[in-house]
Amino acid sequence: MSKRETIAIDMDGVLANNMAHYLAYHFRETGIRITETEIQGKPEEQCFEDPDAVYRYLAMPDFFRTLPINPDAQEVVQRLNDHFNVYIVSAAMEFPWSLVEKYNWLAEHFPFISWQQIVFCGDKGIVKADYMIDDHCYNLQSFSGNSLLFNCYHNINETEFERLNSWKDAERYFFSKG
Amino acid sequence: MSKRETIAIDMDGVLANNMAHYLAYHFRETGIRITETEIQGKPEEQCFEDPDAVYRYLAMPDFFRTLPINPDAQEVVQRLNDHFNVYIVSAAMEFPWSLVEKYNWLAEHFPFISWQQIVFCGDKGIVKADYMIDDHCYNLQSFSGNSLLFNCYHNINETEFERLNSWKDAERYFFSKG
Repeated sequence: MSKRETIAIDMDGVLANNMAHYLAYHFRETGIRITETEIQGKPEEQCFEDPDAVYRYLAMPDFFRTLPINPDAQEVVQRLNDHFNVYIVSAAMEFPWSLVEKYNWLAEHFPFISWQQIVFCGDKGIVKADYMIDDHCYNLQSFSGNSLLFNCYHNINETEFERLNSWKDAERYFFSKG
Repeated sequence: MSKRETIAIDMDGVLANNMAHYLAYHFRETGIRITETEIQGKPEEQCFEDPDAVYRYLAMPDFFRTLPINPDAQEVVQRLNDHFNVYIVSAAMEFPWSLVEKYNWLAEHFPFISWQQIVFCGDKGIVKADYMIDDHCYNLQSFSGNSLLFNCYHNINETEFERLNSWKDAERYFFSKG
């Protein structure tokens, strides 16, 4: 029986760079180029003048399948996977059309993650793990283990949880503990 | 903040009557009628002479979408849903093509279950709840709450966990506790 600690890792905004994808979709739709700096600290639905824009992009076929990967996510998650029980936990159920896209995205970019390690849910309150890495405070608030807020444009002003600034920072957090 | 207890309820073999579906698919394929009595106590892959038969049926489009419902499941789960935090937790990730079928099956037959209450996973070891209702001992073994084995043809000889013989029995278990 393994005694390894368990880490629950979020997808959107943590493994995937949703922000870059939103900005690219918005530029394609409107011709307006918005910079990353302009949306710092804003919730998703306030990034663009049209409050429905983000939900419109999320509903487009292939949005989730073509998300760019956050820097160093592949390398660091692979290393974590060698030393911890890693689960990829995504609140995908709000967007049921994303389920297969997310599954295939993981299979392509994180092939070392087996189907046993994937969890698609709605409310993360049901998750039991030692660590949770997430970009949304509301997911971390119901978690009873060590809550780690992954740095993301919309959460830069949050101070409630320990922050991981990047995947390199996450690597230091887990591997410099001795 | 709700103080209601949490129940994690499995789909295949618990909400759904997979056995009846296997026997119907087998009859359609081979013309051989096998009775429920003949497969009592047998693991899924030993129900039919061809050990691949069950996996072949599971892989057929619409298998999961057209599963029959276990008797009284709808009524009792609705009553549980009024008094507990109910999650439907299915190890669906082994069959990624089932994800959307299972989502739509729940939407049709259990419309009172919201997307927030659905969990599709691989390994149920990540689930935190007060009760788990499941037909497989291996799912209950990694669970730290109250494990309840739902009666199913393949588990009739198991004695490791408290058994719920039917959904009516489940109703008595949860509502006659006083």
